Amino acid sequence: MFLLSCRFDASAAKLFTFKAVENNDKKPKTLLLATARTSQQTSILGQTRVFTEECDVDGHNLDWYKAVKGSGKLLLKPKTAEEVSAILTYCNDTKLAVTPQGGNTGVSGGAIPVFDEIILSTSQMNKIISFDEISGVLVCEAGCILDTLNEYLMEKNFIMPLDLGSKGSCNIGGNVSTNAGGLRVIRYGSLHGTVLGVEAVLANGTIMDCLSLMKKDNTGYDLKHLLIGSEGTLGVVTKVAIQCPVKPKSVQLALFGISNFSGVLETFKQAKQNLGEILSACEYMDQTAIESVVRNLNIRNPIGDFPFYMIIETSGSNEQHDEEKLNTFLEKIMADGVVQDGTVASDYTQIRSIWELRERIIEAQLLDGFVYLSDFSVPVNSFDRFVHDVQNQVGDSGTVTGFGHLGDSNIHLHVISKEYTPELLSKIEPFVYEWTSKKRGSVSAEHGLGFKKKDYLSYSKSESVIDLMRNVKSIFDPNHILNPYKVLPDKK
Amino acid sequence: MFLLSCRFDASAAKLFTFKAVENNDKKPKTLLLATARTSQQTSILGQTRVFTEECDVDGHNLDWYKAVKGSGKLLLKPKTAEEVSAILTYCNDTKLAVTPQGGNTGVSGGAIPVFDEIILSTSQMNKIISFDEISGVLVCEAGCILDTLNEYLMEKNFIMPLDLGSKGSCNIGGNVSTNAGGLRVIRYGSLHGTVLGVEAVLANGTIMDCLSLMKKDNTGYDLKHLLIGSEGTLGVVTKVAIQCPVKPKSVQLALFGISNFSGVLETFKQAKQNLGEILSACEYMDQTAIESVVRNLNIRNPIGDFPFYMIIETSGSNEQHDEEKLNTFLEKIMADGVVQDGTVASDYTQIRSIWELRERIIEAQLLDGFVYLSDFSVPVNSFDRFVHDVQNQVGDSGTVTGFGHLGDSNIHLHVISKEYTPELLSKIEPFVYEWTSKKRGSVSAEHGLGFKKKDYLSYSKSESVIDLMRNVKSIFDPNHILNPYKVLPDKK
Repeated sequence: MFLLSCRFDASAAKLFTFKAVENNDKKPKTLLLATARTSQQTSILGQTRVFTEECDVDGHNLDWYKAVKGSGKLLLKPKTAEEVSAILTYCNDTKLAVTPQGGNTGVSGGAIPVFDEIILSTSQMNKIISFDEISGVLVCEAGCILDTLNEYLMEKNFIMPLDLGSKGSCNIGGNVSTNAGGLRVIRYGSLHGTVLGVEAVLANGTIMDCLSLMKKDNTGYDLKHLLIGSEGTLGVVTKVAIQCPVKPKSVQLALFGISNFSGVLETFKQAKQNLGEILSACEYMDQTAIESVVRNLNIRNPIGDFPFYMIIETSGSNEQHDEEKLNTFLEKIMADGVVQDGTVASDYTQIRSIWELRERIIEAQLLDGFVYLSDFSVPVNSFDRFVHDVQNQVGDSGTVTGFGHLGDSNIHLHVISKEYTPELLSKIEPFVYEWTSKKRGSVSAEHGLGFKKKDYLSYSKSESVIDLMRNVKSIFDPNHILNPYKVLPDKK
Repeated sequence: MFLLSCRFDASAAKLFTFKAVENNDKKPKTLLLATARTSQQTSILGQTRVFTEECDVDGHNLDWYKAVKGSGKLLLKPKTAEEVSAILTYCNDTKLAVTPQGGNTGVSGGAIPVFDEIILSTSQMNKIISFDEISGVLVCEAGCILDTLNEYLMEKNFIMPLDLGSKGSCNIGGNVSTNAGGLRVIRYGSLHGTVLGVEAVLANGTIMDCLSLMKKDNTGYDLKHLLIGSEGTLGVVTKVAIQCPVKPKSVQLALFGISNFSGVLETFKQAKQNLGEILSACEYMDQTAIESVVRNLNIRNPIGDFPFYMIIETSGSNEQHDEEKLNTFLEKIMADGVVQDGTVASDYTQIRSIWELRERIIEAQLLDGFVYLSDFSVPVNSFDRFVHDVQNQVGDSGTVTGFGHLGDSNIHLHVISKEYTPELLSKIEPFVYEWTSKKRGSVSAEHGLGFKKKDYLSYSKSESVIDLMRNVKSIFDPNHILNPYKVLPDKK
């Protein structure tokens, strides 16, 4: 459960033996800062890419939702994998902790220092290296912004296989490190499927070259998958090769109002069967979620009030075919009484205005008070039961609402109350984790564990699996300098 | 390069300290065999699932192409993960080597004992555990045969996301362990994308429960990916959860004859742009490959002789739409002079007869003599150059031919000669690995390294990456009892 407030657990520090960058009036005494000032000392980065002033560093100490705050004093912006390697070699030798950071759009506190770890930003590693118009494989540096990559590809009739609300800021390296999900997983799969290669720098400075551009590569253990979703704790991703789909020629969107949850499930099932290969998003929102967007942001709901809403998006190569498929599907689910009302959009403005009902839910909820955010995978048929059970659990002290990527079994379950209280939090946690665990769900579907959720890992993975993860960590980062206090829970 | 002959390197044995099962007139003295005969001793498996007679074991000592032969004396067929756990616990404690085996359809010698390792067959773990018709997630035991699973799913309007020539025999656990590719990777992606969860038994008997049924699960390092493609060297896969696509309502096939290689590339590019979401296979064969099928197997080539051939398959949810898309595509590439001749099939018999031209190539080539088989990933635009360069290298001593999954940059490059000679082999190897390496390709696209290709790993991965793999191996299997002499090269 994410809290929109800062609540770091200082006790975590006891368990880690890193020597943080010295914080005093003088500049930190690291090789990194021995720049132009002292010509005898070796410099890794130029003076313009080493930051110690609060005005430069502060933004990198605060996360996307302004919910967690670190105390980093030193921000580095390397431009190449070799520079990252030199930095990490030095940090590993001197046991300095490092927090890698991409676009800083994570919501689990994974990219923010817990104390004063050195912030290693990938933002200046932002070159597109190659794109092959035959294979559709893009190779780029980790700091490329997702939307910039997408714009680049669109001109060549391709798109990125992932689409996130934060696409204007997030970096592809951060996406890979978080295994970011988003709206298109139902169509193009996860990054474990689309990322073909990764170059990453390990804690000891080794540049791990797993930057295959090949779709099929069965040469030994596929180590890049360990980097995907490891949130900067195993290595700093510096380059990515990714398989990009062809840009769809036609995109259409339908918004449905549905009076009971079995209708939601039937709509999803029918969409898969009837829309098949053109289905590109299948989103779900309950009434409470939509109502807050309409009330707080003055966004129009083009259909009436319903307990449940769904957005179905199609993307295809022939507009007329897609329209026909969508209409046939609509006629069937309306005639069968599965869906009670709906509207279809095919021009850009209409499509954007429907997407706003989904994408601005969190913004709207924040205007109602304090939001206890979360992100789970549970079986789709239990979405509504989950929301009801949590509502029963919290009683009058909060309003529970559910929405998310139904097509991927991924629900965002939020509890909204006027203000934060520890009492309400204790009703929510660990209840939601226990509930998820009983359904063999995931306590983090797409956000990752970062700092905030690391202690709940055992609700989704057994102790023996967590022990294996610890062993993997010690292979990749034996001194535990990379992103400490993240992902893995403290040993009991 | 695979040889259709047996050439095990006995020197490998020096590097591994396993104690093989005793091979003498008496039964091996293992707990496993202390069955009903001696009631005081504990039995792990019933008498009917422990095999020591040559007639029972021999078939498991010989691989798919009858190219490699092991000397296993003991074959075990556990029925549950708990039985596998008990077997491996015992073998780990007593340092007995074990070779896991699925349907024994691998072609890299990965599932065959090198000496007399215990053969652990998953064939009796063959239950389908669950299928969710809403999410499309199938959970089954490792020994289920791919085609059996596909038949089961077809009745429910779904299909398996992979299709292989060996589908009538191969086991899903073996598919996962090999990261099997096949014909549908272009459409549904690799097993790293479609496999949601894996249960595996590690060398020490730990049952690793990573059997998530959720499409999104960002809870720590995704260890199941280490099992996918590790060829039984890190654990024995016992259960698999896999995301299954909806069964297409319409399948169509086109065979093209093309006079130059740039036309092949343009056809692929146009197919992706025009067929988009319905493109489900994109295969390539050169004239030599097709000619051997026609000549040796008396299969009809419905179009004339051309230097290059392609098979394009579409799968979609609306026959009329798919036909229209395919016709528009055909008209364009014919009018542009990209393709010189072609034929389209939409009924089952026609489709099967075209697929035979592709799927029976190896069978046909074997009738011409000795075949040096291989499986590489290289950039698609270098397929033809690869074949030419190898032909120049071998001169008159062999005929070089290329075919494969063009849509996945995966070429099968075969050299055919009247008989095996070490001279020809030395012309082929290491030339083909060096060639692949220069193109940043993969020396094993979909077959895996197994025993045969393990020593060529360094052509695709750096020493530091191979060292990391060795470290991973020692976490999962510190005594190196699991599938020794496979995947990882001997240390220099």
